[in-house]
Amino acid sequence: MADARPIFYVSDGTGITAETIGHSLLTQFNGVSFDPRRIPFVDSVEKAEAAVAEIRATGERAGCRPIVVNTVVDPDLNALLAESGALMLDLFAPFIAPLEQELGVRRESAVGHAHGMVDFAAYEQRINATNYALTHDDGIDIHYDDADVILVGVSRSGKTPTCLYLALHYGVKAANYPLTEEDLEGSGLPPRLRAHRGKLFGLTIDPQRLQQIRQERKPNSRYATMELCRREVAAAETMFRQENIPVLSTTHTSIEEIASKVLAHKGIRRSMF
Amino acid sequence: MADARPIFYVSDGTGITAETIGHSLLTQFNGVSFDPRRIPFVDSVEKAEAAVAEIRATGERAGCRPIVVNTVVDPDLNALLAESGALMLDLFAPFIAPLEQELGVRRESAVGHAHGMVDFAAYEQRINATNYALTHDDGIDIHYDDADVILVGVSRSGKTPTCLYLALHYGVKAANYPLTEEDLEGSGLPPRLRAHRGKLFGLTIDPQRLQQIRQERKPNSRYATMELCRREVAAAETMFRQENIPVLSTTHTSIEEIASKVLAHKGIRRSMF
Repeated sequence: MADARPIFYVSDGTGITAETIGHSLLTQFNGVSFDPRRIPFVDSVEKAEAAVAEIRATGERAGCRPIVVNTVVDPDLNALLAESGALMLDLFAPFIAPLEQELGVRRESAVGHAHGMVDFAAYEQRINATNYALTHDDGIDIHYDDADVILVGVSRSGKTPTCLYLALHYGVKAANYPLTEEDLEGSGLPPRLRAHRGKLFGLTIDPQRLQQIRQERKPNSRYATMELCRREVAAAETMFRQENIPVLSTTHTSIEEIASKVLAHKGIRRSMF
Repeated sequence: MADARPIFYVSDGTGITAETIGHSLLTQFNGVSFDPRRIPFVDSVEKAEAAVAEIRATGERAGCRPIVVNTVVDPDLNALLAESGALMLDLFAPFIAPLEQELGVRRESAVGHAHGMVDFAAYEQRINATNYALTHDDGIDIHYDDADVILVGVSRSGKTPTCLYLALHYGVKAANYPLTEEDLEGSGLPPRLRAHRGKLFGLTIDPQRLQQIRQERKPNSRYATMELCRREVAAAETMFRQENIPVLSTTHTSIEEIASKVLAHKGIRRSMF
């Protein structure tokens, strides 16, 4: 019997674009087993030939035809890759002609061009936002005047990774404020948050899931008891409701999706690049 | 004169896939000005109709036909979106037929399916790796036995964002070790790193660029002097060379690209998802 179908994400850049769309495509084919790998930075004849050899050898070992998901822009390198005998899915090709016609401009196929060379200003924005997320994690620092958004939730509800994702990808300054037992026993918003009501976004989570996460982090602590998890989540959700804070459950939501929903809700229109 | 061409990234998920590939496509058209926006989570007739209205209105305001880059899977919602009159670039459509033929399987077009529901194990791996990156940032904690990779470099050479990116995207445990003046004046590897030689990866940076970055962070400090930047970078590069540590310059390299090169060099085959 044939092994899992070999998939290659081939790119003249990082291969992230190829992998992102390729993964989305392949998950539409239920029950097929895939064996994916990346071949990034294919920007020369030598590298294209090495890629062809690898693709061919893998196909022979697996006993079935590989599939190549490809974002190499240079037509000559693409012609070389086609010699691998794989099913070639060129992610740009089908869209070039309609875009050229619509825009009345010919595309330019400089290698690497499509993958965004470093833009110092954008880079700086991302780095500054990342530093901001790091220093404003877990309520460490509280210069909330600079924040684009402040995520609020109990410990381990998903605030930190979401803040980092927002910073790294969108250059958005996201602070996070962990609701402590004291906050949850008091009434109304914690004092530090009152002046920043418009920036608040609540994260909640299923208590059982929270308990699992905390248990892994601090096994058999009071922090990880089902009772405390249930009580904290209930108190946090009551606070969000009473204070009219938008809230999202992270239990079944990926980091990408949480980030995207936070941006959409706050009306932050920021490009990923 | 017409305004910038409106671009819509429309998706039944976050829209990140659409934006990633759409951005790569459009940057191949030099000199055209685009006005991009996302319409995520289009997973119902109501939302599709609202999207159509927004696309149409924006096109009328801009005085030119919008372009829609689209990863909505459901055919009925796609048919609705087509009524917007925009140029529709459906990122999945051209590849479905060849994949169905190659795999001998029909694709399933469940909404949201293509965008990867949350996989708890993968999520946990990403979160654990992110926590690891946070606690092993800047040499704070030094449980390097667990590290998949240890980034080494002078302060502000790009270690922290790369570690966070590796964690968030690949679930890779990346620690980072900042080379101090003391380390750079000594000979050989800093003692803490000696037992982990195989995990080390060096980052370097152009001293002028480093000086700019440090100047922004701590204006007019000794830390930000051109002289210190030049001396630290030279000493770090000498150490990398003498100790045979692979090294990459971050000056003109995006975070994605650094992360991708680190993984490739260390032979870490890890899916993004």
